[in-house]
Amino acid sequence: MRTLLANGVDTCFMNPGTSEMQFVSALDRVAGMRAVLCLFEGVCAGAADGFARMTGRPAATLLHLGPGLANGLSNLHNARKARSPVVNIVGQHSTQHLLHDAPLTADIEALARPVSGHVRTVARAADMGREAAAVVEAACAAPGQVATLIVPADFSWSDGGEPAPVQPRRSPSWPPAARIQEAATVLRSGEPTGLLLGGRTLLPAGFEPASHLAAATGARVFGSRNGGRYGRGGGQQSPVRLPYFPEAAEAVLAAMKHLILVESQPPISFFGYPGRRSELAPPDCQFNTLATVEEDGVAALHALAQECGVELGAAPLLPVPQPEWPESSAALTPDAIGRILAHLLPEGAIVSEESVSSGEPILRHLLSAPAHDLLPVTGGSIGQGLPVAVGAAVACPHRKVIALEADGSGMYTPQSLWTMAREQLDVTVVILANRRYRILDIEFRRTGAGEMGPRASEMVDLTRPELDWVKVSEGLGVQAARTATVAEFAERFGAAMRQRGPMLIEAVME
Amino acid sequence: MRTLLANGVDTCFMNPGTSEMQFVSALDRVAGMRAVLCLFEGVCAGAADGFARMTGRPAATLLHLGPGLANGLSNLHNARKARSPVVNIVGQHSTQHLLHDAPLTADIEALARPVSGHVRTVARAADMGREAAAVVEAACAAPGQVATLIVPADFSWSDGGEPAPVQPRRSPSWPPAARIQEAATVLRSGEPTGLLLGGRTLLPAGFEPASHLAAATGARVFGSRNGGRYGRGGGQQSPVRLPYFPEAAEAVLAAMKHLILVESQPPISFFGYPGRRSELAPPDCQFNTLATVEEDGVAALHALAQECGVELGAAPLLPVPQPEWPESSAALTPDAIGRILAHLLPEGAIVSEESVSSGEPILRHLLSAPAHDLLPVTGGSIGQGLPVAVGAAVACPHRKVIALEADGSGMYTPQSLWTMAREQLDVTVVILANRRYRILDIEFRRTGAGEMGPRASEMVDLTRPELDWVKVSEGLGVQAARTATVAEFAERFGAAMRQRGPMLIEAVME
Repeated sequence: MRTLLANGVDTCFMNPGTSEMQFVSALDRVAGMRAVLCLFEGVCAGAADGFARMTGRPAATLLHLGPGLANGLSNLHNARKARSPVVNIVGQHSTQHLLHDAPLTADIEALARPVSGHVRTVARAADMGREAAAVVEAACAAPGQVATLIVPADFSWSDGGEPAPVQPRRSPSWPPAARIQEAATVLRSGEPTGLLLGGRTLLPAGFEPASHLAAATGARVFGSRNGGRYGRGGGQQSPVRLPYFPEAAEAVLAAMKHLILVESQPPISFFGYPGRRSELAPPDCQFNTLATVEEDGVAALHALAQECGVELGAAPLLPVPQPEWPESSAALTPDAIGRILAHLLPEGAIVSEESVSSGEPILRHLLSAPAHDLLPVTGGSIGQGLPVAVGAAVACPHRKVIALEADGSGMYTPQSLWTMAREQLDVTVVILANRRYRILDIEFRRTGAGEMGPRASEMVDLTRPELDWVKVSEGLGVQAARTATVAEFAERFGAAMRQRGPMLIEAVME
Repeated sequence: MRTLLANGVDTCFMNPGTSEMQFVSALDRVAGMRAVLCLFEGVCAGAADGFARMTGRPAATLLHLGPGLANGLSNLHNARKARSPVVNIVGQHSTQHLLHDAPLTADIEALARPVSGHVRTVARAADMGREAAAVVEAACAAPGQVATLIVPADFSWSDGGEPAPVQPRRSPSWPPAARIQEAATVLRSGEPTGLLLGGRTLLPAGFEPASHLAAATGARVFGSRNGGRYGRGGGQQSPVRLPYFPEAAEAVLAAMKHLILVESQPPISFFGYPGRRSELAPPDCQFNTLATVEEDGVAALHALAQECGVELGAAPLLPVPQPEWPESSAALTPDAIGRILAHLLPEGAIVSEESVSSGEPILRHLLSAPAHDLLPVTGGSIGQGLPVAVGAAVACPHRKVIALEADGSGMYTPQSLWTMAREQLDVTVVILANRRYRILDIEFRRTGAGEMGPRASEMVDLTRPELDWVKVSEGLGVQAARTATVAEFAERFGAAMRQRGPMLIEAVME
């Protein structure tokens, strides 16, 4: 714990068990570690991801043996795809006990590898500090990754471990000059060219130089769907995020002869479908990598601007027409919610977004809201939105966090609400309740399965019984209200923006 | 789906996504598959385990890609330790799409292997039937295992798959005669000997011949802690289940010079602790394997009885003194709940048990209840109790299912309640609410961490905020009531036993 703290890891989202009791015990001897209890490991993992997206530095998890890790894996998958640094600490049986096939014995390293860039099991007590320093260093390897440290219980309860010194933090490397020149040549060619931004270039420090380059050369600026954090709103020239469905994404990219990749990769569709290619750029589009995902794309964009002779002042803000306020008596729709949010979102809000089929109109209107950060689902594993909101709120206690959560996806990690209540996090959860896995109505047809019969339809139906999110939320300690009209939703959401602390609003939609 | 049905797999616990839509679509074309929707994959996995424990045959799961599988892993771990047959079906991206690093792409085989005895990815559409037959056959390999079939979406949406014929089911093999004779020699030696039962010998067909052998030879009969299903109560001579804490288990086994293993392994403690061996039998105890976990222990016990000249009639029932009814105005304790259950449990009930620190007194009193089946946590991964109750209730619609669930462990898979409501399962959930991860108070000291300081204590505290299980349950569609005295609990529990359908009783304990 001393080594973690010395290396800047001061927050731990935990669900400990017997094998992790010594780490818990150290909380009373070592000052400085914020310990946040979660009732399910998927909350720990997603919260560590949200924390990392907002701070750029890792939080720790503390998970109980193989099954505890298993419960965290799907949100660690999302963290991996977001390239978030996470120090993932998993307890293990004592080494003597591991010789036997105890009930909880499982191959923890095998479980960790698919989501981790670094997996180590401590080999002796004396290595505890060194391994703790190494796992932080690995988590912070640019651009960031899940690094897993497995700690046998006997090394936790034995003497002999010493804190390790602080590891020097390496910055992401600069791309070679040749790539800058190649990208400049493409931009100067006059052929239709897009800059596809990813990673840290989706924040103002990256998209502002990109927008200057675009203004000077006629290039377009696109945002990869894989980013973990997008700076948006407030008239900022944030890139056009590629749409979810491949037809729409293909249309956005249709004219491009060149795509310059900046901390991004060639764009592909979310799913494969019958008779459709996975690539979203036109077949004759050529790719140039300006900066790989491991490299410093912001520095690369500055170098590219210099190479192209483009001046980088403050990027001009765009005029932002606010959408019309919806009619008060109207039924709630994603469109109406998006309009209300565009008006009421406070400046500097953090939006954790897992609204699935309701997302498109909301996110479109949110572009007209004041400047905010958007944290979308990166790895497609639903059950991320509420935990990421927990982590973002712990990371940024002075910023309002809004979790836009579909009713289906919210049910994967509802335990997050309890941690919001316990830590009195300033999170407003909006449950977009359409009582259905609505996205699957669309995907069903897209995969060639035709029209849904009654039995298939039951498998995407959430009306029998209806989820009562107000009761679920209150049961977990978070004040809640149900809204079914524009007026009701606007009143509750407005009130939530004016107060602090956790609040859930169930938006029952048509 | 036709191949699964032809091979006796007629129930599927599912949480499907885009890649699994063709399987869902087939529900409307192929009759006979009961599809049970769950809101979280851990519920699917645990329900398949519970179904298998009660029927001896596999149900299928249907999980969405790597992250969907990941969410099911901890309960598949429990199923693996219970040696339950499970046909674990996981969708995969289409093969073309897998060439790209899509958001949901993950190494599904790597995730599946730690919990599966059989992992196959379908290689072409024409293999669909053959692979489906193979996965059922693998799941049913004695004594049962998790068998995983990964199905790329394009093979689901392509023509060319044909149902495969029914696979012959193999019975577990008989142990060799030499082992029967060795075990008989041990029993005849007159030295203190125990029969340690596991697997199917924990049911009457196994423990009845064991009790005849014990009566004739002076041997003791013990039950392994690793069994997935125990026949108990009603005066049956069920074996003494080894206690959880190693000191108690060692005391039970202290006098033994020999342990004869019947579908079991040498007993070890749940966790390792400082300065304590993992083995529970005395150091000089000798082990003889009568039947391995893969072999037919019931047949072996019959053969052993014949070898020892012991007649096997109906085993005599023992007198069962019912415990005293607790005082009506008394506060609720696990002891009081155990007494009430001993009186009110209906004959033939199924008890899914995840009561953790509250379990010992309840289970002790339940020995005095009418004959019932006990389904404990096998792999130590909490979050099993409610899903296993779902599966047991689907498997046995005419038997009352009681889930004894601690408030901490219930929070790992509370989504189970929704499926109970949807399917109107006859499950009574008792939440043993002590508002704490109480077991960790004990384990903390046992690992040598000393007395808990205030910060450590917070990490096992569930009072801030208090969970309101009545609201959580009602929010998920299951009628619920809070009880805090013996009279209240007895009234609610008694009423639940007289009616059908799901019901949750929160027992707020001292």
